[in-house]
Order: sequence, then C-alpha cells, then structure tokens
Amino acid sequence: MSCEQYQNMLYSGYSDVGWQSSKSDSSGVSNSGESSKESSRCSTPVQDADRTDRLRDKMKRRIESGDHWFSLEFFPPRTASGAVNLISRFDRMGSGGPLFIDVTWHPAGDPGSDKETSSMMIASTAVNYCGLESVLHLTCCNQTKEKITAHLNKAKRLGLKNIMALRGDPIGEDWVEEDGGFNYATDLVKHIRCECDDYFDICVAGYPTGHPEAESYDEDLRHLKEKVDAGAHFIVTQLFFRAETFLKFVKDCRAIGITCPILPGIFPIQGYHSLRQLVKLSKLEVPEEIMQVIEPIKDNDAAIRSYGIQQAVEMCKVLLASGEVPGLHFYTLNREVATIEVLRQLGLWAEDPRRPLPWAVSAHPKRKVEDVRPIFWASRPKSYIYRTQDWDDFPNGRWGNSSSPAFGELTDYYLFYLKSKSPKEALLQMWGEELMNEESVYEVFTNYITGQTNPSGHKVMCLPWNDDPLAPETNLLKDELEKVNCRGVLTINSQPNINGKPSSDPIVGWGPAGGYVFQKAYLEFFTSSENVTALLQVLKKYEPRVNYHIVNVQGKNITNAHEMQPNAVTWGIFPGREIIQPTVVDPVSFMYWKDEAFALWIEQWAKLYEDESPSRMIIQYIHDNYFLINLVDNDFPLDSCLWQVIEDMFTLLDSPPETQEEGSQS
Amino acid sequence: MSCEQYQNMLYSGYSDVGWQSSKSDSSGVSNSGESSKESSRCSTPVQDADRTDRLRDKMKRRIESGDHWFSLEFFPPRTASGAVNLISRFDRMGSGGPLFIDVTWHPAGDPGSDKETSSMMIASTAVNYCGLESVLHLTCCNQTKEKITAHLNKAKRLGLKNIMALRGDPIGEDWVEEDGGFNYATDLVKHIRCECDDYFDICVAGYPTGHPEAESYDEDLRHLKEKVDAGAHFIVTQLFFRAETFLKFVKDCRAIGITCPILPGIFPIQGYHSLRQLVKLSKLEVPEEIMQVIEPIKDNDAAIRSYGIQQAVEMCKVLLASGEVPGLHFYTLNREVATIEVLRQLGLWAEDPRRPLPWAVSAHPKRKVEDVRPIFWASRPKSYIYRTQDWDDFPNGRWGNSSSPAFGELTDYYLFYLKSKSPKEALLQMWGEELMNEESVYEVFTNYITGQTNPSGHKVMCLPWNDDPLAPETNLLKDELEKVNCRGVLTINSQPNINGKPSSDPIVGWGPAGGYVFQKAYLEFFTSSENVTALLQVLKKYEPRVNYHIVNVQGKNITNAHEMQPNAVTWGIFPGREIIQPTVVDPVSFMYWKDEAFALWIEQWAKLYEDESPSRMIIQYIHDNYFLINLVDNDFPLDSCLWQVIEDMFTLLDSPPETQEEGSQS
Repeated sequence: MSCEQYQNMLYSGYSDVGWQSSKSDSSGVSNSGESSKESSRCSTPVQDADRTDRLRDKMKRRIESGDHWFSLEFFPPRTASGAVNLISRFDRMGSGGPLFIDVTWHPAGDPGSDKETSSMMIASTAVNYCGLESVLHLTCCNQTKEKITAHLNKAKRLGLKNIMALRGDPIGEDWVEEDGGFNYATDLVKHIRCECDDYFDICVAGYPTGHPEAESYDEDLRHLKEKVDAGAHFIVTQLFFRAETFLKFVKDCRAIGITCPILPGIFPIQGYHSLRQLVKLSKLEVPEEIMQVIEPIKDNDAAIRSYGIQQAVEMCKVLLASGEVPGLHFYTLNREVATIEVLRQLGLWAEDPRRPLPWAVSAHPKRKVEDVRPIFWASRPKSYIYRTQDWDDFPNGRWGNSSSPAFGELTDYYLFYLKSKSPKEALLQMWGEELMNEESVYEVFTNYITGQTNPSGHKVMCLPWNDDPLAPETNLLKDELEKVNCRGVLTINSQPNINGKPSSDPIVGWGPAGGYVFQKAYLEFFTSSENVTALLQVLKKYEPRVNYHIVNVQGKNITNAHEMQPNAVTWGIFPGREIIQPTVVDPVSFMYWKDEAFALWIEQWAKLYEDESPSRMIIQYIHDNYFLINLVDNDFPLDSCLWQVIEDMFTLLDSPPETQEEGSQS
Repeated sequence: MSCEQYQNMLYSGYSDVGWQSSKSDSSGVSNSGESSKESSRCSTPVQDADRTDRLRDKMKRRIESGDHWFSLEFFPPRTASGAVNLISRFDRMGSGGPLFIDVTWHPAGDPGSDKETSSMMIASTAVNYCGLESVLHLTCCNQTKEKITAHLNKAKRLGLKNIMALRGDPIGEDWVEEDGGFNYATDLVKHIRCECDDYFDICVAGYPTGHPEAESYDEDLRHLKEKVDAGAHFIVTQLFFRAETFLKFVKDCRAIGITCPILPGIFPIQGYHSLRQLVKLSKLEVPEEIMQVIEPIKDNDAAIRSYGIQQAVEMCKVLLASGEVPGLHFYTLNREVATIEVLRQLGLWAEDPRRPLPWAVSAHPKRKVEDVRPIFWASRPKSYIYRTQDWDDFPNGRWGNSSSPAFGELTDYYLFYLKSKSPKEALLQMWGEELMNEESVYEVFTNYITGQTNPSGHKVMCLPWNDDPLAPETNLLKDELEKVNCRGVLTINSQPNINGKPSSDPIVGWGPAGGYVFQKAYLEFFTSSENVTALLQVLKKYEPRVNYHIVNVQGKNITNAHEMQPNAVTWGIFPGREIIQPTVVDPVSFMYWKDEAFALWIEQWAKLYEDESPSRMIIQYIHDNYFLINLVDNDFPLDSCLWQVIEDMFTLLDSPPETQEEGSQS
C-alpha cells in the first residue's frame, strides 16, 4: 500500500475559528430544488421516501428505528484499469446495503478534474451509475475560494449531495495561516453553507485521540464543536483500536453540546506492514495488546487478516451494544474481503437486498422520480443512464408518448465508464480467436447461456450486450434459451412471464413488502433474414397476443404495435400505492437501442480481429444482414407462447417449400 | 307534440352564395389545440384513439372499416323537469353507442343562454356529464355576427366541438335578405371557419326532395355544394319516406362533386296526428302507400307505432344494403322506444357496450387525457365533473401527489344538473314519511340493497349518494351488504376484489379487448362512533393488509395510509399498452368528498322534513355523530377480508366489556 493511500485516510482538518449558529434543516422534505414536477396539481408521487430524502434524514430515521447502518470509504484509483475495477467493486459492495460510500480527495491527483481516476469522477460514477448515496471529500488547504466554489458547483451538477469537509495537509512541513484563505475545516464548512445554502449535507472529521496537531484533547474537541456549529450534519471519526476510546470521545462530545450523529471509523487490520506504515503516518499508537498478538505472526498474512477481522468484529459489537453508535464507517482500503466478512459477522451485510425497482436506481437527485425505463438497456443500465444524462425530467409512472426521447449519442463505445471489464485477450478467448462461420457465433451465444467451456477451454462470461453472467431471472429460461441460440436465434435479453408473485420473491421480486409483481414474457434476439421471413409468417397466428418489432441495421422496421404506444412489461401492485410499471417496450426508444445493439457487434466484437480477416467479415456480415427482433406475449396469465413461436418458425423452415406456401394461406 | 318541436326538426337553411375552396383537414391527428400535454418528452399516451379524434375522423374510420353507425337528434325541453328527464335519457340512449347526438336550436327559447333548458346547456350537459359526442345546432337568420361569434365562443368554452350550421326560419312569413347579415347557411359556415378556423366540425342540412323554398331541386343541390365547399364536413338530410328518394339524392350529390358523408334522416312514424302535423309544417308529402296503411288504423296508437317501426326498419335495411349509407341519423322526438326498437332490429344498438374505462368518460376535449379518478364519486360522476370543471389538466396515468386538488365548492346541492330525478314526494315514500329512530334509517339502506319494498309498499330506488339502483357489480356483494346495513354499517360505495378477469367481462370488464382487469376490494360506509371504536380495535389485526380512512363531519381523521399517496384500487393490463389505473383512493380528495357525503344527509334527506321534527333531528344526529369510513383490502388475489373486519367489529361489540379489554391486548 502506498503512502498516499494512507494519507487519504487521515483527516487532518483542523479548526480554529469562531462560533456560529447552526441552521440545520431537519424537515423530512427534500428541498434540493431539482424537481420541477412538484408544483402542479397532479404531480409526482413520492414513490419511495428513501429516494427523495437527504442523507441526514435517512440517518435520522435509522437512528429513530434503531436500525444500525454501515458506510464504506474508498480512495480514487491511480490507473484507468483500477477505476474499472473499483466501479465493479461499487456494484458488488453496493448490494450489501451501505447507507453511503465516500471517496477521498487527493490534492496531488487533480481530484476535481474530468479524468476517469479523479475523486470527482469516481464519486459521480458511484452516484449516477451505481446508484450509491455518496459523500465526496473536499480539502481546503492551499486552495482559493474560487477553486473551492468551482468544485462545489461541479459536484452539484454531477448529482453529488454530500461533502466531507476537511482541511487537508499543508504543503511542506510547517503550517502557515493564510489571510483570507481557508486555514481550517471550519472555514470550508462555512463557505459551503454560504455558497450553497443548505444544498449539501456536510460531514466533518472527529479525532477520538485528539488531532495530532492540536494543543490538547479538549482544545481539539472545541474545534470539533465549532465545525458542527458552522453547519456540519454528522461526524466520522479517525480510526482507533479500542471501543472505549471512541465511547469516551462520544461522551465528551455530548458533554460540550455536540448533538449530531458521530460515526466510528473502523479499520480492520489487513497486514503487518500496512499497519506499521499507517501508525507512522497517523501518529496513532497501536495498543500493546494488539501488538502482542501481531508481532509473533507478522509474516503470516492470512493469520493477521483473520485476527484483524476478529478484532474489528469484537470492537464493533461493543460499540453497537453501547447504544451510542447508530452506524459504522469502514476504511476499506479499496478491498472487499475483510470489510464484507466483518459486516457479515455483525449481521449488517444485506444478504438479500430488497430492490426498490427491478433495475438499479440512480442516486442523482434529478432522477429521483424516475421509475420507468425501456427494457432494452436491462443489461446495459450504465449506458442508459449515460445516454439520458441530459434529460431534465424523467418518465414518472408512465413512459408516455415519447415522440422525441432525445437519447444522447453513443458514438464512443469505449466510453470509459461503460467499458468491458475484460481485456481484449480475455474476450478473444471467450468469443474465439478465429471464427469459421456464423455457426461459430451461435456457439458463443450458446456457451454463454449454458456456462459450458468452449473448445479452447474457456467459459463465456460476457457478451457485447451483457457484461455480466446470466441474471438469476434469465436462468429460469436457460433450457429454452440454449435450444434457440444453437439454431441461430441469438438472444440478448429476455424475461419470463410472472403472474402475481410476492414482491419479496428472491428472484423476480422488487418493491415494498406485501405487494405483487407481474411481467409479460419478453424475448429479444438477432436472427437471419431467412428466419425473419418464416417468423413473420408464423406471427400471423399469434395476433393480437404477441406484439413484435423487427428491425435491421438500416432501420427497416416491421411491427404490429402502435407506433407511439409503449407496452408495459413489468409492473407491481403494492399496499396503499399507485401502480408502478418500471419497464416498458417503447417503440421509439427501440430505434435508439437498435443503433447501439448493432454497433456493439462491430465495436466490441468485430474490431477484436484484423481488418479483412475472415472472423471480422463474419461479424460484419451478421451486423449487415441480421435483424433485431423483440417479442412480447401480452397474455401474462398463460404460459409464455414465445418459445412456441420460435419452434413454429423452425418447423416452417424445416418443412418443404410447398408446405411453407400452405402455411402462408392458413 | 307542439308545433315548435316540429320546427326544430326542419332544416330550413338555404344557401345562395358563391363558391369557395374547401380546406377540410382529414389528417388523423387531433389539432383542437386544447391539449397542453403533447409537447413534452414524457407526455400523455394516446390511450384511446377514439377519445382524441374529431367527429370527422371517427366517421372516416367507420366508413373505412364498413362499421355502420347511428346518431340521435333531440330538441331542448321546455321545463326544468323535462331537462332532468332528457339527461337521464341521454345516459340510457348513450349506452346504445350512438356516434353522436345533436341538439336543435330553438331561437324562441333563448337557446344560447345559461338556462337549464337552453340548447347550449343541454348540449353542454350531453358532452360534459353524459360523455356524448354532441353536435349543437346553430341558426343564423336574424342574428348579428357578434351574437353568432359569442355563441361559438361559448360553445367552445363548454367543450362543444361540432356545429350544425342552419339558416333557420325567418320571423314572419316573408323572407327578406339583410345586407352584411347572415342570409344563408353558407354564410354561417364561412363565418365559423373564418372565426374559429378548423376548430369545429361542421354539419349542414340536405334536402332529398329539395328545400321547400328552393327554385328547383337542382338549384337546391348547388346550394348544398356551396355549403360543403364553404367548409362543412358532413351532411344530415331532412326526413323522407322512401329509400330511393335518398339514394337518388346521394347519387345527384356525388354527380356534382359533393364527396363528404351524407347521412339519411330517419323518422319512425310514432302517431297519426304527429305525422299529419309534420307534413303540414315541412311541406313533405307522405307517400300514398303509407297513407293507405295508416288511415284505417289512425285511432290505434299501438298499431301505428308498430307500423312506423316496421316501415323504418325496412327502409333502413335498403339504405344500409345500398352501400351508400355509412350511418343513420334518427329524429327521436325525444322519445326512446321506437328508435331503440328500430336500432335493435337493425343490429345497430350496442347491447353490451364496451366501456373504455370503468367510469363514464367526459367528451369535453380538455378531459380527453383524463384516465384516473378518486373512487369516492363513483355514484356521483356528474358531481365529480362539476367540481373539477375548472381544472386545466387532469391526472393522466397517475393521480400523484395531489397536495392541492382544488375541488370546486359544491354548496348548491340542488345544482340543477345534479338534482335527484325523483320529486320530494317520491323521496319521502322511499325514505320514510316519518323516521322513528336510527334503525329506521338502517332499514332504508337495507331496502335499497335488497330491492324489497318498505312498510308503506315502496321500493327504495335511490339514496342521497346513489341516484340509481344498485350497480350490477355491487349486486355481487348484495348478501354481505344486506347483513351489515341492517346493523348500522350504512354502505354508500363498494367494489369486490377482482384478480385478472378478462376485459370483456360483462359486469366488471372495461378497456380494449384482450386485456385483464383487477380490483382491490373497497367498502365505504357511515357508522356510529361506538362502532368506530370497536372497528379501530379490530383493524389492528389487519395491518398492513387493510388501509383505512375514518373521518367525521368536523374532519377528525384517523388513517393508517400515507397522507399523500393514493392507493390504486382498479387497474387494467392490455395488449401493447401501458398500465391503466382508472380508480384510486386518494387521501386528499377524500376530505373533499367527506364534506359532500355528509352534506347530502342534510341537503337531500333531513330537509325533506319540517324543522325541529323528530325525523329531521334523527338525520341531523347521524350527520353530526357518525363517521365516514373507507376500507381497502390490498391483498387482491385473496378473498376480501373486509366482511370479516366488519364481522369482527360486531363480535367485539357483542362481547362483554372485559372481553373487549382482552381484545385490545391481543
């Protein structure tokens, strides 16, 4: 672990400025001023209170209900591939249910820039694409007011709603106050409140053993009180090794009138050398009883990690049992295993996270009313968010007459945050170093569905349209999918019909408790124009039960659906609520998706191969000649007929030509 | 039948003005300019194409599909009670599925005024409260341009979209042309197009045997061509007695280039004297073959009516078989029997009318997007429309966060168009000349439910909250309702739970074919405060399955529901569509409804009795002390538990006090 990683963990903010009355707003109503929909008579219902509320309100409710939470701290990665990994980690660790995550601010790393590794962009990705409530760190030392204000405005624009206000470390050894500059975290807190009124929720750092630069512990407590009085909403502490250290600190804070939530910073020990380095930098003392255990096993990483987990679990249990600790803040060091294990042992990791909607909700405040999306981007939600990031309002309740949905262009298929997690070599291993014919492509799809290894011994873990292995829900359709893919019906999206399963169903459930969820069967696939000719013949028998859209890369569009009317394919009925219909097949959006879906053949697959190579020409041929088809079976209470439709298509194709003619007359 | 009634039937419009190119717009898209919702990205879906389109478009589609239609002509009544009857007739005849109705313009009756019997107000009622596509007649002779323009603007404001442009009869015997005035129907057509652009669909009159004042048949045809060229969209003819008369007329119209729809005016003979009077006024000749049949039976009304029906049916069959007649226009003389019988025999009367939504849709263009209403006004839809007539936009898809629904005041419970169809005497017979106690009131409710006669031998056909007998759907709950009403749970609104019945279900079905409809069980009733105390005790056992709102006349409000969030209690899933949820329990609207529901006790019932009379005091006591309760069972796939809730309440009330105490602890 590098020295800078440790520095990111240390909150050296130091305050020395006068007192000011706090004007904290604890009303339950969000006033971010972002929603334009709340003034009219028939406006947006508050569909899920959690989505509209501020972090401080969420904390308040959790404190009142006695429901302990946890939060996770990350630092920005140094490389682009590190960023891709970190974003995957956000998705994985987000599923455990953190109340928030925070991203540290590293002044040397151009933290406010648009670089994919900057603090600002990482926090923005967490909010927008991973749907995580996020706190962006911000340090003020050696920064101009203008620069800080610019950072705040940018954060606001990106949908960030929470700031951890820190002083940061001065450049050079000695600390020199600047006139009119930001010398203390308190200055930053005041500046945020002055510039942005009550927009941001503000966190400040607490030092259970006193700030290393403070004259005394009491002096340091007074500084903390000043930071809170200046407008901070909650405190996260520096790490410590004994529960009593924190509990004494909380007691002392309360004694001088600090009333806001104080969250203990938990640091599970993960290695001997990293611990020693940390101690050196933070000037913290590791207690004797810990050193006594660690010293003898210092060369056994596994043993130390195991001890670290145990030590953290024991300490957290004492903290939680004290009644003084509403939530735990984890210094993850961007690692997963130890933190998740501690949380599991504490029973805080959400093993079966409730989904408020069937797709991951973005945490950007302007998207808080969004509760319906086209089904097409189901496996590419980040792409959908990216392409709709300029929308000022979002469909609420209904998709409606989306005559001009104005999707953003997606010309750059290597757009960083949408990039495949797998490097080119891995993709070639999965999708074939060399393709012989179209059937080679069918095999790739089939192997993806079945999870079997391909001839070169590799599993197909992703496809250009699906960066993750098969969803549990799609697994329900595995056998049927296998059958059709190996015959050239190349499926990229599907869902089974569901007729009123409880909203708590572990696979297809979503939304509040006590509800029922429904789906219409959906199937989306590429297939050859010969197949399409037969399919169209067959579909006549399924009017009006099955709606279809059939389109090729040139946009030739064959459909029996209303040209403007979306078809709701997922909906839920809940106690005391209006109907929620989070997924639709929208004809207009389908044409935007079509461009993206066809382009992925070329951008993600064909370009793996040399120009003019046979492999590349095979993919190019499919791109140029195949159709993209979606089918909806409207009769959701009956068994899906979509497999029968495909079966009928194959039967017709297999029959001699004169029979096909008859078929056309029946 | 009065002379003026006949005059209303005669279209004496006469045209003598130059030719002008028609600028008929036959595009399928409505451009009434009333919708403000169609510009934004996520706006209103076109839920039912029929509701947004113009009359001309509806005709066009019906002509293309070969689906014959009928329309019905009425004249304005002379008395207020005649108006109440006519509005009931609109509701009844509307259920047969006319493409439109029209209301004649009677210059002597102050036709453009706000009087409840005026042509303007009757047509407005048909559109707004009965949901009928309506054509308002307008005559121009002896009228100033300003006056006509004022009429047109008023019609537009009231939601009328179609005008039948007529000359009207001159005052006095002789016809004198006025300079710069309106002398011919063509002038009126031009004026409408000039003043209102393409807003109105315009109908003009055709004379199959020539206008009585025309110089010749050919001359009259040329005038008709001028009216159409000036901008009329379709023609309705004067009555005639032989199919060939009309068919020749159509042929002659087509020959000179009239291409718009020409609808035959059908007059079923209903009596001997009325026929003779008509002939005298209209200067029409009754063919010899008809007179020969009628003369011998002229004193037998039933025989003449029967002949008239037969004669009309035969003639209509010939007309429809000719292929020249897309629809039939009936001169009803404000009567039902003959016209309905003719339509039944022709197979044009919709025996099982499809309901686009579970409630009657208003035909006002600004309400065309309306597809959700609170359930409370289910039996008082006209009151709901009245109280929301000032709304500029309507909930679409969702009711949403109706924090200020701004319902209009309903202080005048005798508001004409909402008035009970029954006179005071009939109400007293139904509800009791004298009430002995609260139980007398329970009996009235019970008799309304069961349809049994009360002690004085009268059936209870209505209640203050229900002006019609029990709905077929409510009939499903009859036994349960009877049981609770006789014990003082005074139900005023209810629906059973429905778990996915076909949209074609004759009782609970609505919406397009191939869909499924759903309902949550709903029960609304008044009951005593003693009962409410027990009920609240019982309801604890039903958390969170049952949502309730309990309120008294002072507005004391007890609920377990979200204070802003509506609960969808009726919804439908259809092929190729978004979810439709036409009925909600909306907490905010409930408080407006509460005022209306309590006031009806006093305004419609208590006031039947003398001041200070015991009967009046009993109703006043109930008004002052009872609570209004609504219950929703959210578990729609299970049998409704609401009856069990009431049963449990009675059980608790019947148990000795100590048991009640125990109950409170369970």
